[in-house]
Amino acid sequence: MTVKQLSLPELVAACAEFGIGKVGLWRAPVRAYGVPEAAALVRSAGLEVTTLCRGGFLTAVEPGERAAALADNRRAVDEAAALGTDTLVLVSGGLPAGSRDLAGARERVADALAELAPYAGSHGVRLAIEPLHPMFAADRCVVSTLAQALDLAERFPAHQVGVAVDTYHIWWDDRAPAGIARAGAGDRIHTFQLADWTTPLPAGVLNGRGQIGDGAIDMRVWRGWMERAGYTGPIEVELFNEELWARDGREVLKETAARYLEHAV
Amino acid sequence: MTVKQLSLPELVAACAEFGIGKVGLWRAPVRAYGVPEAAALVRSAGLEVTTLCRGGFLTAVEPGERAAALADNRRAVDEAAALGTDTLVLVSGGLPAGSRDLAGARERVADALAELAPYAGSHGVRLAIEPLHPMFAADRCVVSTLAQALDLAERFPAHQVGVAVDTYHIWWDDRAPAGIARAGAGDRIHTFQLADWTTPLPAGVLNGRGQIGDGAIDMRVWRGWMERAGYTGPIEVELFNEELWARDGREVLKETAARYLEHAV
Repeated sequence: MTVKQLSLPELVAACAEFGIGKVGLWRAPVRAYGVPEAAALVRSAGLEVTTLCRGGFLTAVEPGERAAALADNRRAVDEAAALGTDTLVLVSGGLPAGSRDLAGARERVADALAELAPYAGSHGVRLAIEPLHPMFAADRCVVSTLAQALDLAERFPAHQVGVAVDTYHIWWDDRAPAGIARAGAGDRIHTFQLADWTTPLPAGVLNGRGQIGDGAIDMRVWRGWMERAGYTGPIEVELFNEELWARDGREVLKETAARYLEHAV
Repeated sequence: MTVKQLSLPELVAACAEFGIGKVGLWRAPVRAYGVPEAAALVRSAGLEVTTLCRGGFLTAVEPGERAAALADNRRAVDEAAALGTDTLVLVSGGLPAGSRDLAGARERVADALAELAPYAGSHGVRLAIEPLHPMFAADRCVVSTLAQALDLAERFPAHQVGVAVDTYHIWWDDRAPAGIARAGAGDRIHTFQLADWTTPLPAGVLNGRGQIGDGAIDMRVWRGWMERAGYTGPIEVELFNEELWARDGREVLKETAARYLEHAV
């Protein structure tokens, strides 16, 4: 998503050129390219798929909508398995239109996980619940903290459900370090994503994630917490940023790799 | 602030017209009108000042900036006392430019409170630490949750330092009900403010607070939590909203009172 202006073949070529051996993919471009074709493309390049983003949106009340969401998430599990990644990232979904019942929406996420978790586990895919920043609680994700994500995940075996730790969403939370330790002890950290916090936020607030090093987050401190929690998995940089998308994608990829080395290693 | 388009005399007249007996004031218009003059105006109308907004911005590292902030907060205490309110709301301040040290900034807020709390107490004024939504953590307020605000407040006597509970800032937090109970048990709820959460957020995110009833927050549920915590003080409606500010202020005040009765009583 950081370089969504690149086609899948361009992305694969650029990763090879810059020595990037692993990549996180999003469903829409994978499906547009064709799932088996995308799987063959990354495999032939020796590129490892870290995670597939994203399933989720599991808060619907209406039975037809709920069934459609569950079916779509099963497809997402299939796609993850086809791509050879063991992790599907889930964004839980916001409040249904007109609803003010946050607790109820969170409980429906748990109910949906109870249906999806065994399916994912039997396909060798772990579901990673991603807490999104509280500014998305109404319209995108009712799971706002790492503690909430763990409360949900821990109802299921760790090889079925864990969490995604993204600095952008939880950097403000003084309980995040304790949450990371708890997640690590339970072997539930299924991915680690970096994005920096910059202000002012743009209208709609979705596409304002800062390039590593441009904002308020001390990436080395976060890496330290993750290492002390025993996390040795991949580290993804996931930026939603209109300015980065408007630039040459290869340049942005190269810059992002350099910023990672400068600020996070 | 909800009707900042009204001058102080217009506001006082409109409150009388609509049967509103209490009002929260902001420092800038009070100072522009003259503090003794504003105090005389509200007193002559029999209007009670619930709170003065706001002191704070206590995170500076540089000694000169820090001393200036402390001096300004002492003036704010004096102004609150002159207006006859017992509560000064504090917004803690964000990260200093270039800093990535959230924990350090929060500790500097505590250090500043240690200097200000006795001064406020001796003037009959309580400091109310207001947690602001985590989307403001970098640039406006490093105190993001009610639990953090209470952790700070409880270092001091309750008649010196408490908290402000504002639905807009903490509505997403599943720990807020426990925080309200904790604050009530310690007699530390110094004010209760309502604003609704509406999306999409505007650029900069400051002026997007929704009119009561327009958004995702169930005001009656919040009132219930506050009542069970023993809170019997005033309830303020504090909206930062460009659309409301562009309308006739008297109309907005009347509408806000009606919305309060419709959605919060």
